[in-house]
Amino acid sequence: MKILVIHGPNLNLLGKREPDIYGSDSLEQINGLIQEHASVKDISIDFYQSNHEGDIIDRIHRAASEGPERCDALVINPGAFTHYSIAIRDAIQGTGLPAIEVHLSNLDAREPFRQTSVIAPVCRGRITGLGYRGYLLAIDALGEIAG
Amino acid sequence: MKILVIHGPNLNLLGKREPDIYGSDSLEQINGLIQEHASVKDISIDFYQSNHEGDIIDRIHRAASEGPERCDALVINPGAFTHYSIAIRDAIQGTGLPAIEVHLSNLDAREPFRQTSVIAPVCRGRITGLGYRGYLLAIDALGEIAG
Amino acid sequence: MKILVIHGPNLNLLGKREPDIYGSDSLEQINGLIQEHASVKDISIDFYQSNHEGDIIDRIHRAASEGPERCDALVINPGAFTHYSIAIRDAIQGTGLPAIEVHLSNLDAREPFRQTSVIAPVCRGRITGLGYRGYLLAIDALGEIAG
Amino acid sequence: MKILVIHGPNLNLLGKREPDIYGSDSLEQINGLIQEHASVKDISIDFYQSNHEGDIIDRIHRAASEGPERCDALVINPGAFTHYSIAIRDAIQGTGLPAIEVHLSNLDAREPFRQTSVIAPVCRGRITGLGYRGYLLAIDALGEIAG
Amino acid sequence: MKILVIHGPNLNLLGKREPDIYGSDSLEQINGLIQEHASVKDISIDFYQSNHEGDIIDRIHRAASEGPERCDALVINPGAFTHYSIAIRDAIQGTGLPAIEVHLSNLDAREPFRQTSVIAPVCRGRITGLGYRGYLLAIDALGEIAG
Amino acid sequence: MKILVIHGPNLNLLGKREPDIYGSDSLEQINGLIQEHASVKDISIDFYQSNHEGDIIDRIHRAASEGPERCDALVINPGAFTHYSIAIRDAIQGTGLPAIEVHLSNLDAREPFRQTSVIAPVCRGRITGLGYRGYLLAIDALGEIAG
Amino acid sequence: MKILVIHGPNLNLLGKREPDIYGSDSLEQINGLIQEHASVKDISIDFYQSNHEGDIIDRIHRAASEGPERCDALVINPGAFTHYSIAIRDAIQGTGLPAIEVHLSNLDAREPFRQTSVIAPVCRGRITGLGYRGYLLAIDALGEIAG
Amino acid sequence: MKILVIHGPNLNLLGKREPDIYGSDSLEQINGLIQEHASVKDISIDFYQSNHEGDIIDRIHRAASEGPERCDALVINPGAFTHYSIAIRDAIQGTGLPAIEVHLSNLDAREPFRQTSVIAPVCRGRITGLGYRGYLLAIDALGEIAG
Amino acid sequence: MKILVIHGPNLNLLGKREPDIYGSDSLEQINGLIQEHASVKDISIDFYQSNHEGDIIDRIHRAASEGPERCDALVINPGAFTHYSIAIRDAIQGTGLPAIEVHLSNLDAREPFRQTSVIAPVCRGRITGLGYRGYLLAIDALGEIAG
Amino acid sequence: MKILVIHGPNLNLLGKREPDIYGSDSLEQINGLIQEHASVKDISIDFYQSNHEGDIIDRIHRAASEGPERCDALVINPGAFTHYSIAIRDAIQGTGLPAIEVHLSNLDAREPFRQTSVIAPVCRGRITGLGYRGYLLAIDALGEIAG
Amino acid sequence: MKILVIHGPNLNLLGKREPDIYGSDSLEQINGLIQEHASVKDISIDFYQSNHEGDIIDRIHRAASEGPERCDALVINPGAFTHYSIAIRDAIQGTGLPAIEVHLSNLDAREPFRQTSVIAPVCRGRITGLGYRGYLLAIDALGEIAG
Amino acid sequence: MKILVIHGPNLNLLGKREPDIYGSDSLEQINGLIQEHASVKDISIDFYQSNHEGDIIDRIHRAASEGPERCDALVINPGAFTHYSIAIRDAIQGTGLPAIEVHLSNLDAREPFRQTSVIAPVCRGRITGLGYRGYLLAIDALGEIAG
Repeated sequence: MKILVIHGPNLNLLGKREPDIYGSDSLEQINGLIQEHASVKDISIDFYQSNHEGDIIDRIHRAASEGPERCDALVINPGAFTHYSIAIRDAIQGTGLPAIEVHLSNLDAREPFRQTSVIAPVCRGRITGLGYRGYLLAIDALGEIAG
Repeated sequence: MKILVIHGPNLNLLGKREPDIYGSDSLEQINGLIQEHASVKDISIDFYQSNHEGDIIDRIHRAASEGPERCDALVINPGAFTHYSIAIRDAIQGTGLPAIEVHLSNLDAREPFRQTSVIAPVCRGRITGLGYRGYLLAIDALGEIAG
Repeated sequence: MKILVIHGPNLNLLGKREPDIYGSDSLEQINGLIQEHASVKDISIDFYQSNHEGDIIDRIHRAASEGPERCDALVINPGAFTHYSIAIRDAIQGTGLPAIEVHLSNLDAREPFRQTSVIAPVCRGRITGLGYRGYLLAIDALGEIAG
Repeated sequence: MKILVIHGPNLNLLGKREPDIYGSDSLEQINGLIQEHASVKDISIDFYQSNHEGDIIDRIHRAASEGPERCDALVINPGAFTHYSIAIRDAIQGTGLPAIEVHLSNLDAREPFRQTSVIAPVCRGRITGLGYRGYLLAIDALGEIAG
Repeated sequence: MKILVIHGPNLNLLGKREPDIYGSDSLEQINGLIQEHASVKDISIDFYQSNHEGDIIDRIHRAASEGPERCDALVINPGAFTHYSIAIRDAIQGTGLPAIEVHLSNLDAREPFRQTSVIAPVCRGRITGLGYRGYLLAIDALGEIAG
Repeated sequence: MKILVIHGPNLNLLGKREPDIYGSDSLEQINGLIQEHASVKDISIDFYQSNHEGDIIDRIHRAASEGPERCDALVINPGAFTHYSIAIRDAIQGTGLPAIEVHLSNLDAREPFRQTSVIAPVCRGRITGLGYRGYLLAIDALGEIAG
Repeated sequence: MKILVIHGPNLNLLGKREPDIYGSDSLEQINGLIQEHASVKDISIDFYQSNHEGDIIDRIHRAASEGPERCDALVINPGAFTHYSIAIRDAIQGTGLPAIEVHLSNLDAREPFRQTSVIAPVCRGRITGLGYRGYLLAIDALGEIAG
Repeated sequence: MKILVIHGPNLNLLGKREPDIYGSDSLEQINGLIQEHASVKDISIDFYQSNHEGDIIDRIHRAASEGPERCDALVINPGAFTHYSIAIRDAIQGTGLPAIEVHLSNLDAREPFRQTSVIAPVCRGRITGLGYRGYLLAIDALGEIAG
Repeated sequence: MKILVIHGPNLNLLGKREPDIYGSDSLEQINGLIQEHASVKDISIDFYQSNHEGDIIDRIHRAASEGPERCDALVINPGAFTHYSIAIRDAIQGTGLPAIEVHLSNLDAREPFRQTSVIAPVCRGRITGLGYRGYLLAIDALGEIAG
Repeated sequence: MKILVIHGPNLNLLGKREPDIYGSDSLEQINGLIQEHASVKDISIDFYQSNHEGDIIDRIHRAASEGPERCDALVINPGAFTHYSIAIRDAIQGTGLPAIEVHLSNLDAREPFRQTSVIAPVCRGRITGLGYRGYLLAIDALGEIAG
Repeated sequence: MKILVIHGPNLNLLGKREPDIYGSDSLEQINGLIQEHASVKDISIDFYQSNHEGDIIDRIHRAASEGPERCDALVINPGAFTHYSIAIRDAIQGTGLPAIEVHLSNLDAREPFRQTSVIAPVCRGRITGLGYRGYLLAIDALGEIAG
Repeated sequence: MKILVIHGPNLNLLGKREPDIYGSDSLEQINGLIQEHASVKDISIDFYQSNHEGDIIDRIHRAASEGPERCDALVINPGAFTHYSIAIRDAIQGTGLPAIEVHLSNLDAREPFRQTSVIAPVCRGRITGLGYRGYLLAIDALGEIAG
């Protein structure tokens, strides 16, 4: 089983900036933890980070097409795109890939505009506020749901 | 470490009703899975289900007081109270217990009134749509955060 | 056939207070009229009044379970809970009991907040403004629908 | 005693279209049931159906004037006019006729725009979701209130 | 100069109903006062009352066409149509007739829904709350503006 | 195949008024263009224009009934009724006739209240801003869809 | 009989600025027309213009007190204060003076924020869009109402 | 004279939690201060704290009934119920007891959802932000109003 | 200790107008009661009433400056300014004077626009609906808080 | 004459996914139909599909610049960008190219967020719900308008 | 060239209060910096500070009239009046003086009510968040625009 | 000191299109003016224009990283992204670069959707409506703030 883990815009800054909100781990460290966790469960992971909405859409499409980038399921932290990228929503819904939305911080305790997700309705579920663990938990859940 | 798992109103109906939304496991079966999962991690669990807002508040208070019902953290599926019980919110905030909100179904894909949580802002995080797994994942996360 | 008639919060005050809005009959007198009306149609009635949201939920659950409190249908005047108790809504929907919502006064002619019902969408129908007659009419309708 | 029963726009389609929402009885059959029910109670009924807002207003005016079309009370299913015809509302309020609003379907469980009534505030009460029975119940209630 | 005075829905009830809001003069008496006032100023008046939105639109169209019903300007009390008849608004705007909107009562002191006019933006002005005098004042103003 | 083309309120003014918005063709000229276009495709057209909401509803009903006015599909420019006539919406939905909504002007570039259609949700599609061509395009589409 | 005519903020600019909206008459010229019109009807007028909300309130208070500035009624063009000065509203309501609100331009055809009046609900009526004539018409109406 | 002082949900946590918002006095200490203050004025006090909406309603009902729990007036700090318990509102209005709403903290300076009270409209007045003094001041006021 | 008591717009009308809302005491009588109450507690009072927003701001500034008008705290009944004078809010916040907002009537039971205060968030607390007693209670509280 | 046909995000999935909404034709097939239709009318077509907002903007800019990609008009199906890409709106408005917005499905019958277009106001018109025919009709219309 | 610099309510407190928001310079110091900056560019400055809306309006009027207070352009920091003084807006628009709105702090990062300006639409531009530099920059811009 | 000047989508069209709104200078000319202005102050400028949200985010990230594109501060005209690109907002906030938002036109005088900025709250300040001068003024301010 292969899961695509997508990190949305500005997540490449992780660890360097605003550690009080996002923690002090870098994206590489978090990806390492995910990799390690998944390998125990015999799940392979493709990582993808982009600040470009269109690139994320293209990547989701490739995950649902024949070829080396095909995946069985999707863990996505859409970052700021959570709140307005209906195009990413349509990509998830259009490809039909089982997906879980993950956020490092507890969005419900932040600015009001961060409390709306246009993407969650087309996912299977959503995990927020649990830091890097959210990714691990999502892997576990997809492993069962889509495994 | 001891974690209190609270199931809010109508969750005692689980398994019998609307299995297309909530799954076919009964609450007892879900509690069994939680128990099993926690015992592996050496976490003890107190279960509590009530359809009474006041009883849930009282139980949270006892979890933060000296005595046999004291707990270190809280997993709460507030059911319908999610959307209006500011009193439960205040109980969680007032006691200062680390808490994670869990929902079996993906609320973001249901009626608009189910897309607002008055309780999430005082929790550490929130897991929705992953069925009984949500509880297990929350136990894991609290085990690390509050353990 | 047995119908459960639930009177929500403050309906025990009937007859004593605000007779210009709610009429001068006491709850006992209204229940008497309901009893008399139902017995003619060979319908038995269980009455239940409570100011506690949780107790009303519990009673609805018992009406859908095996035992002496089991009923075939539900007439409910949720009083103030009409406007915010999503938990009672979920109880009705979760048990699947056919229900009719009744109000003594014409809510549409009162304060704006009384013009929203979170419960009506899960009922078969709704009768407002016709005083105690609303209960009788609801009994008649349920007698046909669920009889 | 004479009661005017007004059926608003598109109710002449009853039975032929959308039977899952409105039932399979034609308007003539429903009127027959109303007639039968009323005659038992010694109430005479005038029926009126129109797709024209102005015609309905004129008919309400005649019901409150001397002449053969005078009535003592009004049962009205305003159909789609429920949601915007302030002119019909003003006609009911202006004539002062006791009125009950009836709907065949449970509007509260349908589209949001069907959950607002500009007419209910000037009626004595409102019955929704009980099919043709709503008319019979309204006749009964008006028989007592205005009889 | 000829002015068309249009009385919208339910204004034929004037004098008989709700005199505390609309005064005790009948529509005929008000029309008499208008006639008398206009004749002093050598203005001829066409009166038109209807409860039918479509008839009012047709009449406005005729007022802007060649023929015996042609008029130079329009005084309109749209009654309840004030609040939703965009069709009457379009008729006034489409014909280009100078118009003044008149209301007997002070709408701003009544229900919130009466405080919106879809028609006023295409009129030259608006007079409310001054009873029958509003019509006379509107005649005077149109006499100057369009005379 | 026969298509009913309905022109709503004020469209009889076409050509005479506000040519900068609606163009300089009269309704007769537009109907001529439609007739010509349809006859090439062997589609016969019934034209209907009314400023009366009720008349439009009646005409739609007749289009769905046996008799000389029966049609197979509907092209409707509801004019101002677009924005509030739920009764016309219900007529289209109730009769089940395939329908396309057409507007001469680009409503999205005009007043905010013109940017809501209560009728579009029950149509197959909608064409705005293309002048008389919109009717021709709608005929073409219905010819394929319902032909 | 004496009527106080209050001109609110920026009305002293009349005639000099934005003549396309407010006309080319200066405030002095308008006051002259009012004076002339009133003297024919044996009504004396006190004029007051201020750009200060507090001064307008004080003047209204003096109009309701014994002394040389006492008046029987009030014509007020509140200018921009129309939209937010609840304090002027309270002054009119508190003194109980019969008042009519007048505006030179047709506010309903201007910016949305000009379409709300906090003052109209405590006046007898309101005249907009008729230029200086609005004042004359208001004098006439108050002459009858409060004369 | 006897006054019932009701403390709503979570007020039993006082002193132990969030002292920066609610102060460091325990509920017992505050009750002691109230008792002392009242006894000077010859007012007797009944204290009641509950986290259960239904219990608070029952207690208000008993305060308005014959028996040992009867009181003459009500001081209520509804806690979180302030913002949604229409049932408590109806209990106060239904019993007709003179009541004053008290809050320890200045709700207007906290989260937006704390700035709405469904209960204040049926009270005589409201005191917020003055800590325990609010209760004393409410006792004084009720002593005069209802004494 | 010296407290500045500010009465906002129209409060000079007290006793003469609308006694059913504001009571029959004049402002002088209320000031007398305040004076008497304060002198017992050895607090001196400066009274200030104005209908001018700017004058109230200036007075608050002087209360925070060296000189004979300096005060230690502020009791303010902002009257209608409560609902829109952000400038007075900024004056209180800018000077940092401890303040309590007082209203004679129970604003929460009046018009919706009276249920918003732009000033309360920068005060320590707020007392409404208790008539002249509100001022006395505010003096007491400030005596303790700022004394 | 050359027309640029732009297909927005996820339209490359056409035919493979959600055929109940978007039909079973692939994008290539639809482009083929467009090509065929246009060639009959001697119109040449440039096709462009992208999931990248910025690429679409760049392409529109090139269509308005000298060079091989210059076009005379624009048919755009903005997909999800319809609802938020003000940048594409500005590109169309900034280049001044005549444009028609096309959607395969009837957006008005889908989720509420799909019922707002930020792009339609700068287009000449809009066609929705007519499947691939919408493109053909748009080509026809632009052929006449911009031809 | 002469520019009028208007400082609105509470700006006379500058330097003394809330230095974290508004900086530690007094108004005199800021005016000194403005004076110095302008004199280099041969622009003369008139300074005006007031807490009175009416005085600011009067001063703007004088700036547009013949006399010693006439100015060529306006720099205005309306303080709290930014958010509600439509009267000041009308004064700027009515006099036609070129104006720039300046704020010391970054309003967009403060309370929501500070994020609306009723005055900006009638200015040429707006500068916020740059402290005293905002005034200098505005002087520079007006020097070019209106110089 | 080096400042990055970012021009958002469609700003490459400057000078060619809509000169009445944006002026007749091309982007190159404006950049020339900025360069000239900055070089006087010994500030070096990096220019960047893109119609791609992702590219702008990447460029901001590089400005905050070691390397040749590192800058000390940011002047950004986000164009249409102003109103919805939370991702750019997060990039500015995440990198912590001091930033000023600039717009050529006075957005507050244009369409309502242009009056909201999701980016301004994370900038130091904002300059609108002053044409190319806005950039110069922003350079000056950043030179002082971040210099």
